[in-house]
Amino acid sequence: MSEEVLDLAKELISRRSVTPEDAGCQELMGARLADIGFALETMVFEDTTNLWARRGTQAPLFCFAGHTDVVPSGPEEKWHTPPFEPTVIDGYLHGRGAADMKGSLAAMVIATERFVAAYPNHKGSVAYLITSDEEGPFINGTTRVIDTLEARNEKIDWCIVGEPSSTHRCGDIVKNGRRGSLTGDLTVHGHQGHVAYPHLADNPIHKAAPALTELSQICWDQGNDYFPPTSLQISNINGGTGASNVIPGELEVQFNFRFCTENTSKGLTERVHALFDAHGLEYDLKWTYNGEPFLTDHGDLVTAVQQAILDTVHTPTELSTAGGTSDGRFIAPTGAEVIELGPCNATIHKVNECVKVADLELLTEMYYKTMVQLLVD
Amino acid sequence: MSEEVLDLAKELISRRSVTPEDAGCQELMGARLADIGFALETMVFEDTTNLWARRGTQAPLFCFAGHTDVVPSGPEEKWHTPPFEPTVIDGYLHGRGAADMKGSLAAMVIATERFVAAYPNHKGSVAYLITSDEEGPFINGTTRVIDTLEARNEKIDWCIVGEPSSTHRCGDIVKNGRRGSLTGDLTVHGHQGHVAYPHLADNPIHKAAPALTELSQICWDQGNDYFPPTSLQISNINGGTGASNVIPGELEVQFNFRFCTENTSKGLTERVHALFDAHGLEYDLKWTYNGEPFLTDHGDLVTAVQQAILDTVHTPTELSTAGGTSDGRFIAPTGAEVIELGPCNATIHKVNECVKVADLELLTEMYYKTMVQLLVD
Repeated sequence: MSEEVLDLAKELISRRSVTPEDAGCQELMGARLADIGFALETMVFEDTTNLWARRGTQAPLFCFAGHTDVVPSGPEEKWHTPPFEPTVIDGYLHGRGAADMKGSLAAMVIATERFVAAYPNHKGSVAYLITSDEEGPFINGTTRVIDTLEARNEKIDWCIVGEPSSTHRCGDIVKNGRRGSLTGDLTVHGHQGHVAYPHLADNPIHKAAPALTELSQICWDQGNDYFPPTSLQISNINGGTGASNVIPGELEVQFNFRFCTENTSKGLTERVHALFDAHGLEYDLKWTYNGEPFLTDHGDLVTAVQQAILDTVHTPTELSTAGGTSDGRFIAPTGAEVIELGPCNATIHKVNECVKVADLELLTEMYYKTMVQLLVD
Repeated sequence: MSEEVLDLAKELISRRSVTPEDAGCQELMGARLADIGFALETMVFEDTTNLWARRGTQAPLFCFAGHTDVVPSGPEEKWHTPPFEPTVIDGYLHGRGAADMKGSLAAMVIATERFVAAYPNHKGSVAYLITSDEEGPFINGTTRVIDTLEARNEKIDWCIVGEPSSTHRCGDIVKNGRRGSLTGDLTVHGHQGHVAYPHLADNPIHKAAPALTELSQICWDQGNDYFPPTSLQISNINGGTGASNVIPGELEVQFNFRFCTENTSKGLTERVHALFDAHGLEYDLKWTYNGEPFLTDHGDLVTAVQQAILDTVHTPTELSTAGGTSDGRFIAPTGAEVIELGPCNATIHKVNECVKVADLELLTEMYYKTMVQLLVD
């Protein structure tokens, strides 16, 4: 077996690109891509370096999306091997970012090199949208590159995001959508006072309790064929002075929605305001919009990826929309078909993050065969 | 008008007896009482000095109860006059403790001196139960003196506590009881997890919300002729890691009952446990028993105090059980009749605490006339 993909993954891991640092990863990838005919465009927004690379000018445009930044290693002494010194042990490549997602980045580049060598005159275009702000506040990364592309009407048709989608075997699961995320920061106003004189005070905890009960019990939707039902969780609640004999003046509550395509941020915020209004609360409510849900329920990309996985590992893949958010939320709204396909995610964000070396080669094959399906007549 | 009561009040205020310090106040009072035939007994428990002084050995035993400790002054620069330099301005004596309750202590001593001078052979006995641990944790004060008296079967029949009971005019209100106080510290157990995977977690805020709603809406009793209804207030609530995407593992809730004689600590704790059990909560609940309610609804003491006030200011007084707790809760359970009578409470525990000089003389008269009513045939 060639060690091309392993070698490139090691080169990427050895660059200490803790979010939002890129630490030269994009330069490394860009050099490889430039060698096979990609035009490079570095887009720097604030503290974030992004790479937009494209080979070809015609539609349809197939794009690999991913991130070079990694989460911090945590305590290095808890690692069996230094987190930024890639090491293979018993067939697994260890190092921060091995699974999330420098292994995927290496597989993308090797697959592309092989594809361009085999099909130099492929139809359409191939592009890379690489950021170093996915593990951080995701303000200056993919979303701003997409804004730039939209402004000049550069449209992605198909996009594979290299997030580690697999669970037990490489390719057993691909993500064809993600739920939306929406956070509400609620302040319920009351009137502070002494517990011995409750008629002179107005307890915001008592006022809020029935509203929070209803909020936590509402069925927001039934989900659909692709998504579980929308879920709300109250994540933080704080009220009180610490003294047992003081009725607090305010109550702070934070809640988070994970919502499916049966709902929208707008619809949910309206229902929540209506609920609090119906309970007669005096309140302030600040919303943080983390992303709308997206779904690629069918299309050429889904078909191609499913076929490529079947051809590589000879078992079918499962489409899933479970889990947290990803940068796919910024790409899908442009009309692109978006699929996430990457290695197993059991060790991501943990100490001793690792990826099976053989899976990197499988992943390269899957990416390669997808490109063939889509860009070769 | 004699300045005896004003002078003694000033002497007491000038002693910086911030709780649990006595700063020589009891020595000053004890010397005055010893001069008129009181036997002194100083009871020191831990950091607290208490004075038990008694004139006579026979029943019935009439007792003045009070405290020499004061709450801290707060920022001295916010006072118009130094808090421990008693100063008369426009007919008001200013200083920390002027109203709570060194003015009352001075009035008690002067009233007793006049009473003994006029009726040296009064019937029964007169006593003082003075502590320096009323504004603090009230562990080593009145409750331990009462324990000592009970152990030797020394029974108080009538007790006037010098707490500032008045609101607009001296004597307009006397307290003939107080509500009980009971604090619950609740921990609701859930299971921590990620908001994206609610089925793997168990949100203690969601579980608790219906129980807290019911808890805050229960009618515990209707009150009675002497007490407002029992009231529960949730004073503190805290749950969450601070992160918006984490379902917390635990929720902490603190609530406080102020309860009337229609309920007991035991009955309330049983109802609360039954409520949480009915809601299927997994929880720990720690109770702090701050005192049972007490009531002196009628009797010789009530009659004597009402008559003494009427004779002094020529307007009737109102019996009330409103407000916080007092050391009366430790004395009443022995079977004593307990009344609280003191000056106006508008400035207590605040900067620029003060008492009307003329009210000190009125209060002395009220105390004196009460003794005459009860201890002179």
